[in-house]
Amino acid sequence: MSGRVATALRKQWGWLADYRASYFSDDLVAAIVVTILLVPQSLAYALLAGLPPQVGIYASIAPLVAYAFLGSSNQLNVGPTAVISLMTAAAIATMPEEMRIVGAAALALVVGVFLLIAGLFRAGFLMNFVSRPVVSAYITGAALLIIISQLRHVLGIDGGGRTAGAMVSNLLSQAGSANGLTMGIGAAAIAAFYLARNTFAYRLVKAGVSSSRARMASRIAPIVIIGVFLVLSAVLDLSDRGLAIVGAVPGGLPPLRFPMVELSFFEGLLVPAAVIAIVAFVDSTSTAQELAARRRESIDSDRELLGLGAANLAAGLSGGYAVNGSMSRSAVNAAAGGRSPLSGLIVAVFMALTALFLTPLLRALPLAVLAALIIVACLSLLDFKSIWRTWVYSRIDGLTALATFLSVLLFGVQWGVLVGVVLAMALHIRTTVTPHMPLVGRFPGTEHYRDAERFVVETNDTVKTLRIDESLYYANARTLEERVAEIVQNHAEMTDLVLMCPAVNRIDASALSSLETINERLKSAGITLHFSDMQSRVRERLYRSNFLDRLSGRIFLSQHEAMETLSTPDFSFLDDHIDMH
Amino acid sequence: MSGRVATALRKQWGWLADYRASYFSDDLVAAIVVTILLVPQSLAYALLAGLPPQVGIYASIAPLVAYAFLGSSNQLNVGPTAVISLMTAAAIATMPEEMRIVGAAALALVVGVFLLIAGLFRAGFLMNFVSRPVVSAYITGAALLIIISQLRHVLGIDGGGRTAGAMVSNLLSQAGSANGLTMGIGAAAIAAFYLARNTFAYRLVKAGVSSSRARMASRIAPIVIIGVFLVLSAVLDLSDRGLAIVGAVPGGLPPLRFPMVELSFFEGLLVPAAVIAIVAFVDSTSTAQELAARRRESIDSDRELLGLGAANLAAGLSGGYAVNGSMSRSAVNAAAGGRSPLSGLIVAVFMALTALFLTPLLRALPLAVLAALIIVACLSLLDFKSIWRTWVYSRIDGLTALATFLSVLLFGVQWGVLVGVVLAMALHIRTTVTPHMPLVGRFPGTEHYRDAERFVVETNDTVKTLRIDESLYYANARTLEERVAEIVQNHAEMTDLVLMCPAVNRIDASALSSLETINERLKSAGITLHFSDMQSRVRERLYRSNFLDRLSGRIFLSQHEAMETLSTPDFSFLDDHIDMH
Repeated sequence: MSGRVATALRKQWGWLADYRASYFSDDLVAAIVVTILLVPQSLAYALLAGLPPQVGIYASIAPLVAYAFLGSSNQLNVGPTAVISLMTAAAIATMPEEMRIVGAAALALVVGVFLLIAGLFRAGFLMNFVSRPVVSAYITGAALLIIISQLRHVLGIDGGGRTAGAMVSNLLSQAGSANGLTMGIGAAAIAAFYLARNTFAYRLVKAGVSSSRARMASRIAPIVIIGVFLVLSAVLDLSDRGLAIVGAVPGGLPPLRFPMVELSFFEGLLVPAAVIAIVAFVDSTSTAQELAARRRESIDSDRELLGLGAANLAAGLSGGYAVNGSMSRSAVNAAAGGRSPLSGLIVAVFMALTALFLTPLLRALPLAVLAALIIVACLSLLDFKSIWRTWVYSRIDGLTALATFLSVLLFGVQWGVLVGVVLAMALHIRTTVTPHMPLVGRFPGTEHYRDAERFVVETNDTVKTLRIDESLYYANARTLEERVAEIVQNHAEMTDLVLMCPAVNRIDASALSSLETINERLKSAGITLHFSDMQSRVRERLYRSNFLDRLSGRIFLSQHEAMETLSTPDFSFLDDHIDMH
Repeated sequence: MSGRVATALRKQWGWLADYRASYFSDDLVAAIVVTILLVPQSLAYALLAGLPPQVGIYASIAPLVAYAFLGSSNQLNVGPTAVISLMTAAAIATMPEEMRIVGAAALALVVGVFLLIAGLFRAGFLMNFVSRPVVSAYITGAALLIIISQLRHVLGIDGGGRTAGAMVSNLLSQAGSANGLTMGIGAAAIAAFYLARNTFAYRLVKAGVSSSRARMASRIAPIVIIGVFLVLSAVLDLSDRGLAIVGAVPGGLPPLRFPMVELSFFEGLLVPAAVIAIVAFVDSTSTAQELAARRRESIDSDRELLGLGAANLAAGLSGGYAVNGSMSRSAVNAAAGGRSPLSGLIVAVFMALTALFLTPLLRALPLAVLAALIIVACLSLLDFKSIWRTWVYSRIDGLTALATFLSVLLFGVQWGVLVGVVLAMALHIRTTVTPHMPLVGRFPGTEHYRDAERFVVETNDTVKTLRIDESLYYANARTLEERVAEIVQNHAEMTDLVLMCPAVNRIDASALSSLETINERLKSAGITLHFSDMQSRVRERLYRSNFLDRLSGRIFLSQHEAMETLSTPDFSFLDDHIDMH
């Protein structure tokens, strides 16, 4: 076995080598708590995706096993999630009814292949293109969209639609046919889940329960609430009175099969699969990093791509649908003491047991209760405060966040991240179009040169220094031309212009062409062009062009050297050869 | 009249106030030369767009008048151009045959409205998003695509297709039915136009003709060549032997009419019109700036938007199609001595006379000769050398140029600029993901601090300084976190970390959040975090957050001050209040 494979294996399976027997009970407890959350969520999210409930259970078995083998997070719980379910719903909505189950599996397969390819090409750096304001605005927008999409189940009406506008107008037009019993149960379930999540633990502590027990109780409370509504619905036969229920859930292990569809069918999946892959990756990696940072562990984003890719491939081959790291379940897993990927494997075993033995119990579960569970989970994801704080600190970041949020609501969940990423790029570049380019002078008694408009500094009438506070590239190349022209106009006695470049990290082809133009124009005006404080690698790059041969002046190591040389008679022309070659 | 309007009018009509009688003869001569070029080009480009020849003439009258009133260039000749004609062809190809003329006019109308709106909102800064490598690769790609598209006329076969692949495969499958007479005339015309353009003037000078006369002769030569082929075709009735000719061109002035189509029809034009508007603006403005720079004049890109918008609106309302500033005719206009927008107005008058009286003469003009004219014009636009030079100087710019070039050929002319712009943004941001972040030390005997790995400098074991050579924003925020963690690991004795920020022009919300994380992590490791050389506006922005209240260390004006203070016992804590508020 080569050393490289050994290193990779050690990195991947390091947790197993260090594993101790005492860890197992932690992982087991965490797995039990996660499973209690996952059973109702898997049903609810499958319905959100427009798929039968057992598909959600299938998506919660094989993918967890696959992720445990390839992923890099010790805490991430992979499986059905709200956002990816909503995106799956949008992608399969145009398919014929009978094709949707196999279509969703094929979609997961393509998502998995995309993620695996990205992982093999180490495309994890793409995470750097997604800013925090985009992620948090995206999550808030998607959560709001999901809440709106679930209102119809709580009201007991038909509805649907893929954008917030379509959903709301469908809700309003159908509001007259709302079912009273469903609304009552929905409202009660929302209230119960909300209290269980937000004040139950606090009240228990106040009543004298230890805080760790209170936290555990508040985590188990949802399954108790679901149990109560399930028993009520089954015993009172509420589905006869117009309450929508889950209905028969086929039992048994997930089918292992390749989703057999025509090649042309796969073609139609490429675009939605690409968008789902991006969102799944960004969303999971953000969650995993957040949890890892709390434990001083680290996440390898390339390995995350492989882990998520394998999970989606497994979902596609075992009758599931696209999966993702779940923020809520991963947080619960970490809080309940989950230490290693083993807890994920145990959850998979529990879910397989559920599929084998527990499905008959789920028949009478009211859809309104599942919708209430989704709504309350999404309420906690709404974070308008963070959008507001971002706006206060920086209009640019705030604008990006707002555009992302609105794109999710108005155009659908799949557009938010793309709009945010492109807009963030464009607005960042916009900030560099008009860089700060002050004339500078010497801070008296030092070798330090500062902005002549902000500080009292020593300046020189014939030698002017322009500091460029930005990399020079296509977006600001013409701005520099204009700024130099303005300085030439305003300083008739000028004989030398020094461009001080400490902040210039790059001079691209467009900017090089502008510097050539500036050099020629200054030469014809009798002004010599110099550079100072230029970073070594920038200067080295300039040697690849013939610009330095045509430059009228010199390149000085430091601004101070430039002023010392240019302010006194210059006999140092012999140095040029040393300095330039 | 308010002062603002007066200023705008003076800016717009300044050339008229300064106009002298002697200028008129210059403008007249330039207008004659441009018209000689424009008559055959207007026919040729209309055919390239898939429109009848008179549409090209109509597009060469009203738009020139409109541009003269609102545009900012003294040299730009607006009218039908090869690239915009090709884009129009792609946009109207899917329309029913009988709708194409009115469809092309409606398209020009929408392009005009987009440009006018952009001008009113002063969106001219968008030009800064288009880098030189993108522009030059785009022009080379489009010229090559146009040459390929014209080969069928020179071979006398059917063909078509919108991408290079489709065109070439159509050409190959039809090559068997090539018409010998057409090929002969096409080859002769290409040779004649090529010699007239490239060696004719040189040979005349060698033969003793003055160089200005030789240049003029080489500019008039094409019309002589066209005349010869026209007479040949008419006298020998070559169309009976399988030579495709222009055919009857309806005479008379352009019809003034609103293109009456249904509203839903306009909807389908929005996307192609937006892309045409962007390309027309970028292309025209590049040409106008190039010509203006040679005369030390300047171009106002917002006014260019208005001028081009008005020209396209006029084209749409007078039976023409989308127009643009022509590189070849504008260069000829400038070289022939055109001084002011008046020369454009005179060209419009000449073209109106052509429409009224000369159309019967154009009937027998062979299509192969018009195609040859287009091919030779486009040959001079191919600039592979500049793509190569860009590649040598910078792989990033070279990659952008290559992707733009290939997108034009493979996906069609409308995609090149968009692919180039988005890729240039992404690759620029990619260069900032892993900024140069060296540990620095004092250059002995100075107050200058340089990279400790590249220079022999004085360093300090307990106080480390990390210089950040880039703005801090979402793309590199996590890289900074990783770099700081690495430094902490490698320097056990460190008590203070100074982040030296001369090149940090911006700290966005994502980076602020990373700095908060770094501050907390260092604090728990017993290390104090400081900043030095921070630009004033960056520091001022930080006051909007509560980061400075939580910062464990100080913000020093200069790096030297930081080292002087931190290297010796510190009694300056009272200064904090002065420095920070």
